[in-house]
Amino acid sequence: MSHPAFTPIVDSLPETVPFVGPEAIERRTGIPTRARIGANESGFGPSPKVIAALRDAAPEFWTYPDPENHVLRTAIAEQLGIAGDEVTISEGIDGLMGLLVRLFISPGDIVVTSLGAYPTFNYHVVGYGGDLRFAPYRGVHEDPEALAALARETGARMVYLANPDNPMGSFWPAADIARFIATVPGDCLIVLDEAYMETAPEAPLPLDTTQPNLLRLRTFSKAYGLAGLRCGYAIGNRRLIGAFNRIRNHFGVNKAAQVAALAALGDQAYLRSAVAAIADARTQIARIAADNGLRALPSATNFVAIDCGRDGAYALAVLEGLAVDGVFVRKPAAVGLDQHIRISAGPPSALDILAESLPRALVRAQSSAG
Amino acid sequence: MSHPAFTPIVDSLPETVPFVGPEAIERRTGIPTRARIGANESGFGPSPKVIAALRDAAPEFWTYPDPENHVLRTAIAEQLGIAGDEVTISEGIDGLMGLLVRLFISPGDIVVTSLGAYPTFNYHVVGYGGDLRFAPYRGVHEDPEALAALARETGARMVYLANPDNPMGSFWPAADIARFIATVPGDCLIVLDEAYMETAPEAPLPLDTTQPNLLRLRTFSKAYGLAGLRCGYAIGNRRLIGAFNRIRNHFGVNKAAQVAALAALGDQAYLRSAVAAIADARTQIARIAADNGLRALPSATNFVAIDCGRDGAYALAVLEGLAVDGVFVRKPAAVGLDQHIRISAGPPSALDILAESLPRALVRAQSSAG
Repeated sequence: MSHPAFTPIVDSLPETVPFVGPEAIERRTGIPTRARIGANESGFGPSPKVIAALRDAAPEFWTYPDPENHVLRTAIAEQLGIAGDEVTISEGIDGLMGLLVRLFISPGDIVVTSLGAYPTFNYHVVGYGGDLRFAPYRGVHEDPEALAALARETGARMVYLANPDNPMGSFWPAADIARFIATVPGDCLIVLDEAYMETAPEAPLPLDTTQPNLLRLRTFSKAYGLAGLRCGYAIGNRRLIGAFNRIRNHFGVNKAAQVAALAALGDQAYLRSAVAAIADARTQIARIAADNGLRALPSATNFVAIDCGRDGAYALAVLEGLAVDGVFVRKPAAVGLDQHIRISAGPPSALDILAESLPRALVRAQSSAG
Repeated sequence: MSHPAFTPIVDSLPETVPFVGPEAIERRTGIPTRARIGANESGFGPSPKVIAALRDAAPEFWTYPDPENHVLRTAIAEQLGIAGDEVTISEGIDGLMGLLVRLFISPGDIVVTSLGAYPTFNYHVVGYGGDLRFAPYRGVHEDPEALAALARETGARMVYLANPDNPMGSFWPAADIARFIATVPGDCLIVLDEAYMETAPEAPLPLDTTQPNLLRLRTFSKAYGLAGLRCGYAIGNRRLIGAFNRIRNHFGVNKAAQVAALAALGDQAYLRSAVAAIADARTQIARIAADNGLRALPSATNFVAIDCGRDGAYALAVLEGLAVDGVFVRKPAAVGLDQHIRISAGPPSALDILAESLPRALVRAQSSAG
């Protein structure tokens, strides 16, 4: 029987989920999640003003959202001191990644990223037929010099760097990022993922929207505590930002997301308190690690990578030991990083459960590893 | 100065907005929207249980949505009597259209639709380099026979039909749709847009998920009153539905949308009352048209097309006359349909404003048309 053929690219793709959700793990294991500290959400939640704004706006959700996201876009631009057409909004950074790959990558075009960096970026590159090339991490940092060199050598169309980094939590100061940008060819788009910018120890590189090949990605999912509403934005020059209007789903950012993000942006005092709470939680996670003889890496993000001290299989066993207790964490998969588990900076109630569970998880992992 | 090159397809695309929002019109004209009856939203709003569910869920929006949309997908499937993997969810039907075009259309592939049908479908086809071919309407109906014939003649990969139809509100009974499906080649995907299915006068064609080349699109934006939250779904066989998992933005349907759609689905009594209110509003719109010497077309949707009795320029002048009074309506643009304006079935308060404004708008249009 005949049936419609997929495109050649789609034909080559697997069905996948870049990140298995804790809901799916619950459905599979039957173990309720007691501590949700694996997805780098903010258990401190958004500003109470955001909750209030959402509740007030709910009766208006029968109207389509503004397809130009004008009010939110203007507010972001004003806060950043840039023009309204130097920022575009989408369904989280994931949504932006799908769009920016589509804008620039034809089948076979080369894209450079780090081995072990954000899988959803890779998912979109492969999804448009791009040819991924990987530079290894230098220790626990993405390696900007190696990324720029690989981009030059391969004639890459696009290079990805997260700063602060996910999954390791490491950070490059502004001067290093400036040097990286200067050494990438002008016809290669730089995707600078700053999802964790609010929790970084230093101010980011100042915005320069005259740069012809730089898109910076930010989000309301992390420090702002709005992962569930899917709202991210890209900053860049008008040529790059305007191009999103050629292909985006104009009504894709829903009204709840726009209302919540606007209210979140308007409460910078809350953001500061959330960032302080996240910093306290990082300290607490490091202490829990130390109490168990493990080493926590310094973190510029809302999570902490813990070196389990042995190989990747052992770290996986630790993760699985935590899962038995309903403690949801994740871990890097790439060789060289995979001896770590990655724990989100949750509130004290969640970290108490971690503190209680980790010793048991280590015993389980040691006995299974022999 | 060098800069990153767009793909050849993107290079050929304009920056655009498929539908200019009433917010943009307000910003441009300074005239506040008094009657929002142009975007086929439901001014009757969603069920009060939806509002309550959203307010209850707001404190949980710090967590990512379930990327598998499992609870909502299962509820939809149960209501329809199909399997959970025969339905997929996206950011409105617009989001689904972007994905399904990407699944099946390579540059140059032929896609058949009606001249004057849904512009956002065309936007996505062009956005992936598809070659659009148009069958004219037969009177005020999309013409299934002509669409199927054109699909056969051109070797089209995809054919689009909305039933009930937007922008004309017309409807084909199930037997006509069945005949259409039977006459489209099996390797041509049929996109059956049933956004307005809940307000149709007859039951739709029964679901048959063994059909190899049929995707049916439905939404919570219309009768369910949730346009602002962007939640649509596609129904089809496992091969077609599973393929969305190769390319979709897994976390794209946000938590507010999933919570609201689930609550909306659970209140079928409210849906029936909303459909009854929409029917009353259609009657009222037809009466207002008749009071002004204009003819309203029969409607199977939540809007009514009104024939302004002269040419497209005149109908546009009527629309502009309404806009002066803050009455937001839209109109078809295609020749043969463009003598109509299209008015959404809003609540009595909105239709009272229409009744008050329409006579003035007609006077203005007559004087400008001479």
